[in-house]
Amino acid sequence: MIATNAYAAFDPKSPLAPYQFERREPRPGDVVIEILYCGVCHSDLHQVRNEWGDALYPMVPGHEIVGKVVRTGTDVKKFKPGDMAAVGVMIDSCRTCNNCQNHLEQYCEDGMTGTYNTLERDGITLAQGGYATTIVTDELFVYKLSDKLDPAGAAPLLCAGITTYSPLRYAGVGPGMRVAVVGLGGLGHMGLKFAHAFGAEVALISSSPGKEADAKRLGAHHFVLSTDNAQMKKFRTYFDVVLNTVSANHDYHSYLDLLGLNGRMLVVGLPAEDPRVSPFDLLKNRRSITGSMIGGTQETQAMLDFCAEKNITADVEVIPIQQINEAYERMLRNDVRYRFVIDMTSLRQ
Amino acid sequence: MIATNAYAAFDPKSPLAPYQFERREPRPGDVVIEILYCGVCHSDLHQVRNEWGDALYPMVPGHEIVGKVVRTGTDVKKFKPGDMAAVGVMIDSCRTCNNCQNHLEQYCEDGMTGTYNTLERDGITLAQGGYATTIVTDELFVYKLSDKLDPAGAAPLLCAGITTYSPLRYAGVGPGMRVAVVGLGGLGHMGLKFAHAFGAEVALISSSPGKEADAKRLGAHHFVLSTDNAQMKKFRTYFDVVLNTVSANHDYHSYLDLLGLNGRMLVVGLPAEDPRVSPFDLLKNRRSITGSMIGGTQETQAMLDFCAEKNITADVEVIPIQQINEAYERMLRNDVRYRFVIDMTSLRQ
Repeated sequence: MIATNAYAAFDPKSPLAPYQFERREPRPGDVVIEILYCGVCHSDLHQVRNEWGDALYPMVPGHEIVGKVVRTGTDVKKFKPGDMAAVGVMIDSCRTCNNCQNHLEQYCEDGMTGTYNTLERDGITLAQGGYATTIVTDELFVYKLSDKLDPAGAAPLLCAGITTYSPLRYAGVGPGMRVAVVGLGGLGHMGLKFAHAFGAEVALISSSPGKEADAKRLGAHHFVLSTDNAQMKKFRTYFDVVLNTVSANHDYHSYLDLLGLNGRMLVVGLPAEDPRVSPFDLLKNRRSITGSMIGGTQETQAMLDFCAEKNITADVEVIPIQQINEAYERMLRNDVRYRFVIDMTSLRQ
Repeated sequence: MIATNAYAAFDPKSPLAPYQFERREPRPGDVVIEILYCGVCHSDLHQVRNEWGDALYPMVPGHEIVGKVVRTGTDVKKFKPGDMAAVGVMIDSCRTCNNCQNHLEQYCEDGMTGTYNTLERDGITLAQGGYATTIVTDELFVYKLSDKLDPAGAAPLLCAGITTYSPLRYAGVGPGMRVAVVGLGGLGHMGLKFAHAFGAEVALISSSPGKEADAKRLGAHHFVLSTDNAQMKKFRTYFDVVLNTVSANHDYHSYLDLLGLNGRMLVVGLPAEDPRVSPFDLLKNRRSITGSMIGGTQETQAMLDFCAEKNITADVEVIPIQQINEAYERMLRNDVRYRFVIDMTSLRQ
């Protein structure tokens, strides 16, 4: 067994605190990764505080994991010690259903296995995430990471990155298309970078006037203040795609209104209250609303390769693990541009 | 001017009653049609009773119009006297915007001109519909109708038909696909016939157990009682497409739940209350909800040609115009299988 240092939640109320546990010895298909950086996703906080009602404690959060391979199982082909590697939101799936066979493991008909806060497929072992010194994962769910990419900035690609990359690809975003990204947070800033990199004309829509300069710096051709009716009206029916990253409660109407013929609103945010949808808003211009959840193993690797080619990473603020509880509070105040990433050397000191 | 007998609504409360008015003399592009049959759409009733708040009286309803060409303007190419012809939900559009240029006049950026209860594009003339002996319409919005088709059964193709044909085509329904049609009314029974004719495996989903025999007769391979949880559960994630024709208030959840990977719910019903949509239901299986509104001129003609080839018409109950008020009451009780069609000879007696 591999002794592992981590930070864990022990109940919904207390701060995260140091925790020691053991990772399994590598099976033939496993890769042992020394974690260098782990991004801090808003869903970490939801789960730590049991806001989705399914918390399993002690819980080591973290599913934006970047590190270095230190050992491999006897059957591992893709990796050797010293390689940079990454683990995202999934560590397993049934591997036999149609969706798994088509590399869409995130839609596994039997349910994918998350990286933490769930039982592994043996039904016994509590899966533990990336706020830790080490992770041991089957190579199918480990991705190659280019040495060219800044590893801290690359960590959020594993969730915020793929969550926005996948729906934009699914919608065929490319040159000649007009894309509106709603919300400039962890997801939104990645969506903006990808839509821009895919060659689309991109607008960033936000309720915060202070985000205009950043939006333009990150690749937006337009900044639209969502609270300004005149600005919103100017862009009515203008866009082919709206990438909606907002997780606060909101009304879909004003964003659907931005879509032209066959326009699609891609939903990746999860508001607590189900939004109402006017069928009239959908009938007009034959609009669609489409959901999307992270990405499959093949597409996640393609996204990382694309990022290496285009030198795309997240804008991050690197923190030591000892600041994680403060980082959660700042995240709740949207006081981060645009993702906290934990430097895991702080766990080895 | 062409003297025309009709039935009209004069206010939201009174029954429809006889009305005489004049149609224009044909302009160079116009076709003069002696109306033989006109279908009775639920939206006629909504508009007659001003339930959408935009009623213009006197109002001659009717937008499922089938008849015989009796005169043509000097520039008309497609028609000659004696031809069977049809008029649907639109009689004009701007003709210059991108959507019009692409034969998607129903999504005209300047707004299409409906067949009745609206002003024509001159901004003065009240457009009057098909509960009348004659209509005069520009040939762009007049369709050729095969002599092979029963003209009474063909009338509802112009609204109920194209409204279901178009989204099924847009979703690429064909052999190997699984389609669930929700609701067996005027729209649903046409959706069922089309999905079957396109070669899909089709289920009809209804809250009325009494509709099973009809559903099977009309082409359904499966009948699913929506109030029976066990039956609904059996078909979870089974379908590629759900055609939702329900106009009563309802929850989208149970129908979204029927969709597998990349599944699409096509919305053509217009409930009074906007349905709530759970983003989780959309994220799962990357599902979409897509709206659709009738069809463009080119697709409407293609639909009528397809119907002639496959001998597809609506199941209708033919009534004289004098029974229209009773028919409205029966329609409100869903006491029609599946569309009333007015025999317009009853207006000429």
